[in-house]
Amino acid sequence: MKLAVYPGSFDPVTYGHLDVITRGARLFDRLIVLVIPNGEKTPAFTAEERVELIRKTVKDIPNVEVMTYPGLLADFFDEVGADVVIKGMRSVSDFEDEQLMANINRTLNPRFETVLLMTDNRLSHVCSRAVRDIGRHGGDLSAFVPEAILEEVRNKLRPKK
Amino acid sequence: MKLAVYPGSFDPVTYGHLDVITRGARLFDRLIVLVIPNGEKTPAFTAEERVELIRKTVKDIPNVEVMTYPGLLADFFDEVGADVVIKGMRSVSDFEDEQLMANINRTLNPRFETVLLMTDNRLSHVCSRAVRDIGRHGGDLSAFVPEAILEEVRNKLRPKK
Amino acid sequence: MKLAVYPGSFDPVTYGHLDVITRGARLFDRLIVLVIPNGEKTPAFTAEERVELIRKTVKDIPNVEVMTYPGLLADFFDEVGADVVIKGMRSVSDFEDEQLMANINRTLNPRFETVLLMTDNRLSHVCSRAVRDIGRHGGDLSAFVPEAILEEVRNKLRPKK
Amino acid sequence: MKLAVYPGSFDPVTYGHLDVITRGARLFDRLIVLVIPNGEKTPAFTAEERVELIRKTVKDIPNVEVMTYPGLLADFFDEVGADVVIKGMRSVSDFEDEQLMANINRTLNPRFETVLLMTDNRLSHVCSRAVRDIGRHGGDLSAFVPEAILEEVRNKLRPKK
Amino acid sequence: MKLAVYPGSFDPVTYGHLDVITRGARLFDRLIVLVIPNGEKTPAFTAEERVELIRKTVKDIPNVEVMTYPGLLADFFDEVGADVVIKGMRSVSDFEDEQLMANINRTLNPRFETVLLMTDNRLSHVCSRAVRDIGRHGGDLSAFVPEAILEEVRNKLRPKK
Amino acid sequence: MKLAVYPGSFDPVTYGHLDVITRGARLFDRLIVLVIPNGEKTPAFTAEERVELIRKTVKDIPNVEVMTYPGLLADFFDEVGADVVIKGMRSVSDFEDEQLMANINRTLNPRFETVLLMTDNRLSHVCSRAVRDIGRHGGDLSAFVPEAILEEVRNKLRPKK
Repeated sequence: MKLAVYPGSFDPVTYGHLDVITRGARLFDRLIVLVIPNGEKTPAFTAEERVELIRKTVKDIPNVEVMTYPGLLADFFDEVGADVVIKGMRSVSDFEDEQLMANINRTLNPRFETVLLMTDNRLSHVCSRAVRDIGRHGGDLSAFVPEAILEEVRNKLRPKK
Repeated sequence: MKLAVYPGSFDPVTYGHLDVITRGARLFDRLIVLVIPNGEKTPAFTAEERVELIRKTVKDIPNVEVMTYPGLLADFFDEVGADVVIKGMRSVSDFEDEQLMANINRTLNPRFETVLLMTDNRLSHVCSRAVRDIGRHGGDLSAFVPEAILEEVRNKLRPKK
Repeated sequence: MKLAVYPGSFDPVTYGHLDVITRGARLFDRLIVLVIPNGEKTPAFTAEERVELIRKTVKDIPNVEVMTYPGLLADFFDEVGADVVIKGMRSVSDFEDEQLMANINRTLNPRFETVLLMTDNRLSHVCSRAVRDIGRHGGDLSAFVPEAILEEVRNKLRPKK
Repeated sequence: MKLAVYPGSFDPVTYGHLDVITRGARLFDRLIVLVIPNGEKTPAFTAEERVELIRKTVKDIPNVEVMTYPGLLADFFDEVGADVVIKGMRSVSDFEDEQLMANINRTLNPRFETVLLMTDNRLSHVCSRAVRDIGRHGGDLSAFVPEAILEEVRNKLRPKK
Repeated sequence: MKLAVYPGSFDPVTYGHLDVITRGARLFDRLIVLVIPNGEKTPAFTAEERVELIRKTVKDIPNVEVMTYPGLLADFFDEVGADVVIKGMRSVSDFEDEQLMANINRTLNPRFETVLLMTDNRLSHVCSRAVRDIGRHGGDLSAFVPEAILEEVRNKLRPKK
Repeated sequence: MKLAVYPGSFDPVTYGHLDVITRGARLFDRLIVLVIPNGEKTPAFTAEERVELIRKTVKDIPNVEVMTYPGLLADFFDEVGADVVIKGMRSVSDFEDEQLMANINRTLNPRFETVLLMTDNRLSHVCSRAVRDIGRHGGDLSAFVPEAILEEVRNKLRPKK
């Protein structure tokens, strides 16, 4: 029984994240998608909205749960008895950030383990920042955001008249 | 029951590889360490020698096997019914190579899955090329090569008088 | 008849941008320099000021126009019937950003095409951020900003007493 | 009338190269695909074979020619009166190599101009090295090599019994 | 008599910075640690606090002084008659930033010289951003911040009840 | 009294190397330029030829010596009582190689210290590989190779009729 945690800001969840979730749920027995409440900037969606959007997106994958947690990831890891953290990798800059985070977390918690899943190259441009930029200009999000939440994301981001 | 494959040239195996093997064997039920016979250059150790050195190194980890295979990794993956390939990541250039290989293998075999383990930063300089260079000059290999095989690697690489 | 678009924030235009404009205007029949009104941070110069500074800088290059546009670049591309977007490349991080943008824009508009011009290495450090930092400390901008607008940029950025 | 040159080793030509050729032929009036005879290693296909494989691949694109040239690219550029060299960019390491080459060539010939086309991310793993590796193991090349030359490439690379 | 300057935001100083200071003070006759008052974001510690924290950290290294300066580094360099600026390098993105800064500063002041010290890989994850994140969640800072200032940094960053 | 060592293959020495030597000789009391006899490939110039070319190039810089050494750099460092190794940095890939080497050498010899000098961006394309390629095609080397040795390098590399 291996438990994996997939942390991120998911602001909002995209087809890129869904690909990582689907593959992670195949590799490990249970997968917790963990919404990090907020980093340095104000997110476009609240933590609760982001949790709900992910829940709608993954509702057919039985071994996936969605949560949020205000503390340090290294503490959450122990609280839930996780075996591994998974992250999706798209680019060299992602890689350097994750390498830094993996070593910081291992210092705080020697049990901490990170594995990186390679993003499918057909999805390498599908990211939350693109969704926010395109959505704010009223552009077409159907190649970026799962169908189950497309309407909701579009409405929330749509420029107000 | 998840089966992982850890392919590489292992010319020769180092403490860096051993760290990936130990962590991979914890995450997955069975781990096959797969020696790729040879790439473009003549290796310092034959495929058989490399298999033997790894066997001595991992003999106390029960769920690890060591093999060699002359064909395509995408074919081996199916032959043994693997679930995932694991690789150790040290640097940005490693990352770009692995991203390319992951996408090539996914084209050949849609079931193919790769996960990357971050090298512990204290071991990020422990690589086979360093072992070969230092060994050929008769330098100290004890921080690079597991103790069980240190003597053997030293003798094989030592400059002949 | 090929029409190229060179988008950017140009906050303010530099000798680095001018090099890209000059070379782009040689390669294509018409070139539109497109000021992106604002990204995430407040710019030092308004969109109108930036358009004016570029106009003064390029006034002797006959096939260049300067515009601003509030919407998505992928839409502007079709509105003006562009054939290609050009960008100047200085560094590895520029490259990853542009690769992402090129793939996002191709998803939104299959006609979209991006080409990258290599920055002359003698100008690789000439960027708007440097201009703003140096200008705010009252430093010498003459190696960074075209002569036609040097006075104006200096006055605007100069620390107020 | 703009003349572009697309140099490379094309050992052998792939769908990735064909994408660059198609897009380059749309942007410029004439495009010369230039086979560099050989770099440091022995190629899998002779320069003549590589020229022939490209000719079969591009035979329906009217403004494309295929040549080989034994000298410096900076000299070829002037001999044919080229306006620009085009290259396909896939990765950060490609980028650094091309940046170096662009600056070397500009030193030798101030008229020299390079533009980079971003590889479509769906083709970012389609490279000649993959073709040679897969072909030598008798693997499936149909996602990598244009149909018009698939049989020929497969036979040439196929492991001899 | 060679005078080196080590500029940074030091928000707050870490074991990583201390490693660079110790090694720099061995290589050069005098070393000035220079606190840059503030960049784009509000720092967690004021410039005066940062200077004090560094002073406590380096009080046993005789040839080190700590200062702050509001102007351009290229001007400070001349004012104190410095011979060289030193920086610690951890990652590829650090490298690109420093390369840019070195070339900008050389344009402003031809005497300007920068040397980069490689961060010890065992400290490559020890950075101020990690200290701020961990401290704000009340996590363990003892592997990141020198003992002489640990209590003070912990109290300042600790989440207020 | 600080002694620096500048190791490299120098096959052959270029204006880029000369820039590093000049700046290193200003920063440290004595500088040894150390020719590494050969790496993996056959060099274009023998170790003795390379030493001679550097001697002619640096003959007016009083505190510089030129040597060759067949063993490990970590051992040479102690034999001559060096304080620091200097390297010139041009690109991200240079950086990753040097970071690896610095950490390997620190493992072999805890006294080992490496500092990186940033290549002047106007010289970032001036490298030995370019010299060999251009020289073998009879191209113009005057922007790459110091005048004192230009004739000799040209003759040695010139294609034989």
